[in-house]
Amino acid sequence: MSVNSPLPVASDLLPIKGLRLGHAEAGIKKPGRKDVLVLELAEGSSVAGVFTKNRFCAAPVQICREHLLATKKAGLQVRALIINTGNANAGTGEPGYQHAIQTCDELAQLMGLKREQVLPFSTGVILEPLPVQKIIAAMPQAISRLESDNWFNAAESIMTTDTQPKACSRKIEINGQVVTLTGISKGAGMIHPNMATMLGYVATDAKVSQDLLQALTTEVADLSFNAITIDGDTSTNDSFIVMATGAAGVEIPSSGASYQAFRQALIEISQSLAQMIVRDGEGATKFITIQIDGGKSDQECKQVAEAIAHSPLVKTAFFASDPNLGRILAAIGYAGIADLDVGGVQLWLDDVWVAKNGGRHPEYKEEDGQRIMKKSEIKVRADLGRGQSSQTIWTCDLSHEYVSINADYRS
Amino acid sequence: MSVNSPLPVASDLLPIKGLRLGHAEAGIKKPGRKDVLVLELAEGSSVAGVFTKNRFCAAPVQICREHLLATKKAGLQVRALIINTGNANAGTGEPGYQHAIQTCDELAQLMGLKREQVLPFSTGVILEPLPVQKIIAAMPQAISRLESDNWFNAAESIMTTDTQPKACSRKIEINGQVVTLTGISKGAGMIHPNMATMLGYVATDAKVSQDLLQALTTEVADLSFNAITIDGDTSTNDSFIVMATGAAGVEIPSSGASYQAFRQALIEISQSLAQMIVRDGEGATKFITIQIDGGKSDQECKQVAEAIAHSPLVKTAFFASDPNLGRILAAIGYAGIADLDVGGVQLWLDDVWVAKNGGRHPEYKEEDGQRIMKKSEIKVRADLGRGQSSQTIWTCDLSHEYVSINADYRS
Repeated sequence: MSVNSPLPVASDLLPIKGLRLGHAEAGIKKPGRKDVLVLELAEGSSVAGVFTKNRFCAAPVQICREHLLATKKAGLQVRALIINTGNANAGTGEPGYQHAIQTCDELAQLMGLKREQVLPFSTGVILEPLPVQKIIAAMPQAISRLESDNWFNAAESIMTTDTQPKACSRKIEINGQVVTLTGISKGAGMIHPNMATMLGYVATDAKVSQDLLQALTTEVADLSFNAITIDGDTSTNDSFIVMATGAAGVEIPSSGASYQAFRQALIEISQSLAQMIVRDGEGATKFITIQIDGGKSDQECKQVAEAIAHSPLVKTAFFASDPNLGRILAAIGYAGIADLDVGGVQLWLDDVWVAKNGGRHPEYKEEDGQRIMKKSEIKVRADLGRGQSSQTIWTCDLSHEYVSINADYRS
Repeated sequence: MSVNSPLPVASDLLPIKGLRLGHAEAGIKKPGRKDVLVLELAEGSSVAGVFTKNRFCAAPVQICREHLLATKKAGLQVRALIINTGNANAGTGEPGYQHAIQTCDELAQLMGLKREQVLPFSTGVILEPLPVQKIIAAMPQAISRLESDNWFNAAESIMTTDTQPKACSRKIEINGQVVTLTGISKGAGMIHPNMATMLGYVATDAKVSQDLLQALTTEVADLSFNAITIDGDTSTNDSFIVMATGAAGVEIPSSGASYQAFRQALIEISQSLAQMIVRDGEGATKFITIQIDGGKSDQECKQVAEAIAHSPLVKTAFFASDPNLGRILAAIGYAGIADLDVGGVQLWLDDVWVAKNGGRHPEYKEEDGQRIMKKSEIKVRADLGRGQSSQTIWTCDLSHEYVSINADYRS
């Protein structure tokens, strides 16, 4: 199931000069399935990343962090990424760590790199040993397929329970020169600690210094992949990577109009990729935008937005198209703002003003709420009436299908 | 649906000297249904309460807090409680507040009390005006039925989506004298911001000073009603009230063996009443105890327990009897302990040691996990390996039935 999600067309996915992608069928879980992806970056590329905060983070996540530090320290660049599906290499202890190192070593040798120039990623079952020999055996195939124009296969190679591949491209002009961004993502939510994970990769041919790219990646992650939620579960393997090859010959400065244009394009492509995950959320039938205005801080706005987005009662009401809007007020009330004056809270559903000053709006009619709730894309907007901050997050409803997928999933 | 919940038998519910209960059929939502309950307390009684932290708390909750303060200040005692189902009187603004005051005034007049000697409680739909005239009209009927031996009707009178009444009694001996405790509760979870709520009332004929009773109530609430969760939603009307009539002539001191005996009995009866709510949780098919040991503080143990209990992925795995135990480790990992060393984490399912030092136990077999997951009562125990604190909470699984109940509920 997928809510109004645009299926990517291979020809719409623009190659990024300086980056090639190659996929392989390693037979990790099923034979014949694309389950390994190698990305090769040209010399001079910058790579930045943001990773799961889950303390049970997977071995590859740990190694990504170490290799990003090690290359920076040594003045080297990350030159290759390797991603496998079917096994998360999480909860696997020291042997899992060694398996991930072995993966990096083998790929580094095949590509003439140092170990720390390779970043490994895994997604799939937790607590099972990584079938590292299968991955190593598939590397020559992936390398033989390395091409710039291979984004669609790449998007398919990282799918797990996703019902469709997720990818998109953007083109912008900076000082009269064209800069291209292309990205892929996967995950049917940030939600699958066992079988999946949220992964996002965005590449551009702009030149961006390592430090600026890391700062932008951290900021953009908060506005995109960290602003979506299916069920509040955070995977052990979540990763968001931004790569800049510099091959377009356009350098992005750290401020000014060019910086803003690039930042905006990066936000847009990352938000699109993140929203595709929500639209493909397990069992999702509704795509819901939650915007909280009038908070004292971004933090409290996000807290309220997440309380609404995580409430099973709110989510089942959306599934049922039931304008049971007291549930949203209740979630605002328990979001943890200890001094919230509910008398200052306003609530809208799309353009319908539902609650005024903390109580039902005198002119609100159930039929108006009902009309909005029946739509497949709905915006919930609340104003807390206590400040100037705003935050927006995206989520989906909670359906029978969600329970089925997650209850039946391993059997 | 209800998981191994003992149905109370009217004759097992022991009267509490100094307390009488009377019910009425006010026709608030449906004609002929018991929907109003009046409790009358003898002179000299103490009453203590703990209420929802939801900022959108209902008008009656606000008034309960005010009246408890006002009676204390004036040297008066709370002498009556009035509870209605079918309407929560929440999100109703100033008119809602006035309706609740009017309810207290009318009952006070009929019973020869002052307004602040009455505590009002409501549970039901949010955002709808309280049908205060129906409640007032039903008061004489409820008063005419006041009896000590009316606990079973009382338990039935406060039901909403509960599939069965919840009540129990305990008898203890203190210095050779018998002290009795009887309680009732309602709620199919702490979960119904719209139609229901968690309510708990425990009465005893022991004599307990107002201050001691309030301290005990706060402590016991954390060990019982605050230690259960169905879906993490917190209602606008949640209330837990403990009443001590003193009619048995036994005074509870503030320390020592008698204090401990009384405290233990109060904990037990409150835990039983709270667990009945989980067992009757919407769509529940499993009753799950989550015990977290080895934490640095009670707070972090509870945080981890709640992360597990709130995870839809963990809950659906229990529903499916699927030993998908990586989901539990992942929940521990994202519970928010920033410096958690996952290498020190142990996990058991009943007596089966699943994860040792953060990874799969070498001797753990899927069939052992499967055997436990098939049971209707399961204990999850984790040791964080970093301190001496422990916390236990109770929850249930997440089933298709839960989605059905909450999606179809108002239609």
